[in-house]
Amino acid sequence: MPQLHTTLWRSWSARIWLQDYNSKSLQADLVAAMIVTMMLIPQGLAYAMLAGLPPETGLYASILPLVAYALLGSSHTLAVGPVAIISLLSANAVNMAQQQTGLDVMSLSMSLAMISGLLMLLMGIFKLGFIANLLSRPVITGFITAAGIVIAVGQLEHILGIDIAGSNLLTSSQAMLANIDNIHWPTAGIGCLAIGFLYWARKPLPNLLSHYCRPNMAHNISKIAPVSAAIIGILVVGKWQLDTLGVKVVGDIPAGLPGLQWPNLEPELIISLLPSALIISLIGYVESISVAQTLANKRRQQINPNHELLGLGAANAAAAMSGGFSVTGGFSRSVVNFDAGAATPMAGVFTAIGIAIASCWLTPLLALLPKAVLGATILVAVLSLIDPHEFSFTWKYSKQDFMAMIITLAIVLLVSIEAGVIAGVVASVVLMLWRTSRPHTAIVGPISGTEHFRNIDRHQVEQCDRIVALRIDESLFFGNVRYLDNQINQIVASNEKRLQHLILMASGINHIDSTALEKLLDFNRRLKDKGITMHMSEVKGPVLDRLQQVKFTGQLTGNIYLSQHQAWQALAVDHAPCCSSPDH
Amino acid sequence: MPQLHTTLWRSWSARIWLQDYNSKSLQADLVAAMIVTMMLIPQGLAYAMLAGLPPETGLYASILPLVAYALLGSSHTLAVGPVAIISLLSANAVNMAQQQTGLDVMSLSMSLAMISGLLMLLMGIFKLGFIANLLSRPVITGFITAAGIVIAVGQLEHILGIDIAGSNLLTSSQAMLANIDNIHWPTAGIGCLAIGFLYWARKPLPNLLSHYCRPNMAHNISKIAPVSAAIIGILVVGKWQLDTLGVKVVGDIPAGLPGLQWPNLEPELIISLLPSALIISLIGYVESISVAQTLANKRRQQINPNHELLGLGAANAAAAMSGGFSVTGGFSRSVVNFDAGAATPMAGVFTAIGIAIASCWLTPLLALLPKAVLGATILVAVLSLIDPHEFSFTWKYSKQDFMAMIITLAIVLLVSIEAGVIAGVVASVVLMLWRTSRPHTAIVGPISGTEHFRNIDRHQVEQCDRIVALRIDESLFFGNVRYLDNQINQIVASNEKRLQHLILMASGINHIDSTALEKLLDFNRRLKDKGITMHMSEVKGPVLDRLQQVKFTGQLTGNIYLSQHQAWQALAVDHAPCCSSPDH
Repeated sequence: MPQLHTTLWRSWSARIWLQDYNSKSLQADLVAAMIVTMMLIPQGLAYAMLAGLPPETGLYASILPLVAYALLGSSHTLAVGPVAIISLLSANAVNMAQQQTGLDVMSLSMSLAMISGLLMLLMGIFKLGFIANLLSRPVITGFITAAGIVIAVGQLEHILGIDIAGSNLLTSSQAMLANIDNIHWPTAGIGCLAIGFLYWARKPLPNLLSHYCRPNMAHNISKIAPVSAAIIGILVVGKWQLDTLGVKVVGDIPAGLPGLQWPNLEPELIISLLPSALIISLIGYVESISVAQTLANKRRQQINPNHELLGLGAANAAAAMSGGFSVTGGFSRSVVNFDAGAATPMAGVFTAIGIAIASCWLTPLLALLPKAVLGATILVAVLSLIDPHEFSFTWKYSKQDFMAMIITLAIVLLVSIEAGVIAGVVASVVLMLWRTSRPHTAIVGPISGTEHFRNIDRHQVEQCDRIVALRIDESLFFGNVRYLDNQINQIVASNEKRLQHLILMASGINHIDSTALEKLLDFNRRLKDKGITMHMSEVKGPVLDRLQQVKFTGQLTGNIYLSQHQAWQALAVDHAPCCSSPDH
Repeated sequence: MPQLHTTLWRSWSARIWLQDYNSKSLQADLVAAMIVTMMLIPQGLAYAMLAGLPPETGLYASILPLVAYALLGSSHTLAVGPVAIISLLSANAVNMAQQQTGLDVMSLSMSLAMISGLLMLLMGIFKLGFIANLLSRPVITGFITAAGIVIAVGQLEHILGIDIAGSNLLTSSQAMLANIDNIHWPTAGIGCLAIGFLYWARKPLPNLLSHYCRPNMAHNISKIAPVSAAIIGILVVGKWQLDTLGVKVVGDIPAGLPGLQWPNLEPELIISLLPSALIISLIGYVESISVAQTLANKRRQQINPNHELLGLGAANAAAAMSGGFSVTGGFSRSVVNFDAGAATPMAGVFTAIGIAIASCWLTPLLALLPKAVLGATILVAVLSLIDPHEFSFTWKYSKQDFMAMIITLAIVLLVSIEAGVIAGVVASVVLMLWRTSRPHTAIVGPISGTEHFRNIDRHQVEQCDRIVALRIDESLFFGNVRYLDNQINQIVASNEKRLQHLILMASGINHIDSTALEKLLDFNRRLKDKGITMHMSEVKGPVLDRLQQVKFTGQLTGNIYLSQHQAWQALAVDHAPCCSSPDH
């Protein structure tokens, strides 16, 4: 597979930042790494909880993956690690697989991360990143909103200290309502205070701080609010020994670094995890590349989508081999990394070292961290992903896109995340085909005295009953030729007897696929039978080049004119004037 | 459901031909009906054999369905009945369902016809005919070719008198080779002579006849060659009592008309037949409407795709209730009907009467019809569907479309028809997304002294380092915005510092979906951060109307110019001239 070597080599040799690395970059990267490390510790623990795994796995998933991404990824500032939605997807997939296989969640999570990592690597090597384009914005919004709601409801278990078992939103809401009397008040107190603190830290705190320091600094301080909440939580629990009162805490976390191991990749296991792994890969990639691109644009840097896939693939493989679970580039931590001044991917390596140090020596301090605080951290993070404006905006702009959004949202909430994503993708594609299946067309005529051609229904233009000029505002492909067929047929039927020339004005046609080409030849043949000549005008260069490959012009009964004006001159004016000016 | 009433009423009230019906139309329809009846008798028997059903069902499927289509369909000349490919699809689906349910093939075939009829009616009522657009030409060609091969190989069983059991091409070819020694020579003699005769009747015969009569007449005579072959076959078998030598014949066919009954529509049966029924509906519809449209165009008549669905749906429902199986509009019989002068759908009604008469009184004559002749009829008919030119043409025009064709062909041959069609549709859609995922774009500049803007890489144009004008030759949608994002980013990165204005020339943009719109707003915001103003030019009317709904122009940092020339004038010339002519 020489392609693999080349791709990996290109990806690595793009690492020009290493050559220019100097003490200034080093200092910037060290500062950013320290801030991100502080942020990642509670996030790692929280997302491990969300993924249904022991807390230390969240730390492990934030060590080697960061190094792997730094080696192959193309973003200078993306911070990789566990994120909420991917953790939820992982938890769901692993739950299902556990019921089938009976294997433990930890090894299943590692296998899942490895499979989705390998998928990303394959997509990167074979340049298949475009597959992620299937996830349109409405689908992603619908999905993130619904997943956010599912995650938030799930966290009420930790925040209120009650039992919420349920496979989807309906059943878990019912379970919650049934258990509402069993709320554990000390836990709920901590949880609600933590939520209040985290919300206060999002807006009011930076506003307050901005009087004393730079706005960027103020925002960064607010971003490490979860750490502060965790520290306060630990102190409060420790002071009043609340863990003995039933407040659930993280408990003992084994100190040290994870051992390396190869995850279970039996063929049967691969097959059962593959669909979920594919969805995780695609969603992880989309989430990550949006962040990477946004940040790269701010510094006029380049993102290479295929290198991103390689970087994320390597990160997931590294997570799988080092006791972690599925990871991707996270929005908030990347922004913090960027704002804190990270200059190169070396910041990621330093962050990994920071987390490794924490795993070795800080874990005893985390034992008393209340789960309610972690739940609050997750809840506030995912609720911030929900953007009602996006719904009203999409509704206003396109009812079709809104429909795809609502389909995704509803199916994620009522059936499952995977089903929702698949339904959303299918809906997007079908709606796009429906839209392009009825291309906008207009019969055009020249505006007197100009070379401009306009829709005869909208403008006062010259007409000539021997000629119909039809402008087609869409590429011609299998999805819309039958509609066009019908339309041309109608035009011919309603201009019977006098019609001699049909001109297809191709200024809006960017591509003609083979289905459409055969239809054009078919039109040409049928029109010829009726004594009507078919012409084309304003055919774009690439389209014409391709038509020449099959000697299209030789078969066309009429000509291909460079401009619509030339066509009109040749057919309506020069030959035998017949134009009726719009005044008649 | 008032919509249903309206649709059905419109469909019926479009039957204006009834008002103009006169003795001339009557005569024309009667002649055409006689010829088509003769043609349909052996075809009906043959396709019933192909569908794995008793011969009389082929006749039954050619009575009521023709009347039902005449009531609701929109084509004046389409001849509905059993066709080869749909019969094969029906046989396959029924075989599978029989293994699951244990019901008999006859009642399963009727249920299948009813379900696909109802699907067509629903698609017609809800105007969902566009779904059939998913079947691109390469997919249909690949599918028809492969199905033709499968059918042809299957007919060798009847033509050679050997046993060919097998679920796909590989297994049935193996079975044939294993049984090659058991060829029944009298059967094979009849079969091969019939094939020879039918091929002779296709080309040499009409050429010969055209010396004596009109070419159309000559072709129509050649079209009833299968009837002649059947008659000769019956006479030969009768004369030498070949049936006693082991030549398989059709055998006794019950005389009379079928009783009406409602097919079995238990929910479980519906669910198991639904996927096959959907594929049958779509393929039947596509096959039928292509024929209908071709013929309607020749007489400048109109085809309404949704009325076609209603007509075909009603025809299938009628087939299901009268002991028939899945039907659709057939190519050769419709052409014969058309060429023989059928003036109105009344010809179909007369044909139905003709077949009904045959069912009542001609069946005793058919008992000695050798199955080898029917097999030969089918073989010659399906081999004529295979068009090698289509393959070389598609290869030359588009490698992508060729790939979709080969994928469909291979999977139909090696796996199953349904899997092949689904794989082909998925391949078409993915290839289309891949193609549109990398839209053609060009940086353009004005040709000195003109209002024309051309690609700076291909033409000598003026340039201005403060301005980049990017022409995008594709609609913007979820499938291509990420690529565009990357591209704009590259342009901005490579024109650092001097760039002040980016103009998106939208002459090739026919639609902007909500994913793309948000990306445009995102570009606008990011460019603003870098002090670059974003403009648009030549935005089409419908696109602009939609953008106004969400107040896009208010958010755009720059302006929307009617023409690229105006944009250039305003930004490059009027403001502070900076153009470098191409000579510098």
